[in-house]
Amino acid sequence: MKIYTTTKPLILGSASPRRKDLLGSAGIEFKIQPACGEEPKPLPGQNPEEYAKKTALLKALEVSEAHPGNYVLGADTIVVRDMDILGKPADQDEAFGMLKSLCGRSHKVITGCALIGPDGNSVNFSVSTDVEFIDFEEKCIRAYVTTGEPDDKAGAYAIQGLGAFLVKGICGSYTNVVGLPLARVIETLVQWGVVVPGDE
Amino acid sequence: MKIYTTTKPLILGSASPRRKDLLGSAGIEFKIQPACGEEPKPLPGQNPEEYAKKTALLKALEVSEAHPGNYVLGADTIVVRDMDILGKPADQDEAFGMLKSLCGRSHKVITGCALIGPDGNSVNFSVSTDVEFIDFEEKCIRAYVTTGEPDDKAGAYAIQGLGAFLVKGICGSYTNVVGLPLARVIETLVQWGVVVPGDE
Repeated sequence: MKIYTTTKPLILGSASPRRKDLLGSAGIEFKIQPACGEEPKPLPGQNPEEYAKKTALLKALEVSEAHPGNYVLGADTIVVRDMDILGKPADQDEAFGMLKSLCGRSHKVITGCALIGPDGNSVNFSVSTDVEFIDFEEKCIRAYVTTGEPDDKAGAYAIQGLGAFLVKGICGSYTNVVGLPLARVIETLVQWGVVVPGDE
Repeated sequence: MKIYTTTKPLILGSASPRRKDLLGSAGIEFKIQPACGEEPKPLPGQNPEEYAKKTALLKALEVSEAHPGNYVLGADTIVVRDMDILGKPADQDEAFGMLKSLCGRSHKVITGCALIGPDGNSVNFSVSTDVEFIDFEEKCIRAYVTTGEPDDKAGAYAIQGLGAFLVKGICGSYTNVVGLPLARVIETLVQWGVVVPGDE
């Protein structure tokens, strides 16, 4: 018995192992073809939701053009402190600075998603989750940064990894903080007939 | 470099591999000595927080008496629908019924915690997280139940496993839903001097 059955050819346009694990967890089948194009830099004052949605759409478009006949899912996750968009840190000093700026307060994690069909039809949405960090000591972040976990993560932490100790609580989708708002993505795939509940 | 250093002998009084992984993730060191005593049944109309706290305290007391000279952490996680306490399902039919009763609505996950010192001093608290389930189809839960994952889980699901597809969003501590409110537990261990931030 299957939780969901995939009935159309689906491509995940992302190299993230977290997204692969999340999407695969409910039994959904797909191929992986990461987008290679450079992500656009956020413009000054750009709305974070709009930025995440647009970046996801650009990724999905690139993969869709290269792989016609498929449904393509693109995603982009950002961390937003007030109105500042935090991407992946350039080095460990920047990772330390990012984490320190998030200490003892709340920020938002936003994932933009885009699904494009073989006919070029598309849907583009974003999901936002509030995350509250504990008021940690600097030596804890110093040690966390040296583990290397923050290196390739937006906002310089992984809620599903060692970084769990940073998080007091969240409000919204947890998988969205990991990198893919699973419930909303599955709902969309069901609406589009790409997957069906249960066995075919 | 360590995120936290354990400076006193600590025992986790639980056989749960999820609790072991969570507590160990921030570098905290401890031994495992599960409590063996039977968990008390909730009394009709018993306050869920009181029940979870008391069960955690009973577990910690049992282990503390058998292992003098240690700090002992006990925990008990329950799922609460309205005022009904859901424990682990007796079989797959009960698991199906529990999940169906949680479909498309919110419930609470409460973890009671107790820390007992070598001098018999103790602290006993509970943490509550709101969890909202999607409005899933019955065939999805049938398939989920047959995976066996719900068998030994309070409320018949694992948010950190395949069960992630059930969850639309949460409000509160995520690790609390997994089985241990990590930030609150670490805060308590630091207050008690059992662990210190960074290297010793």
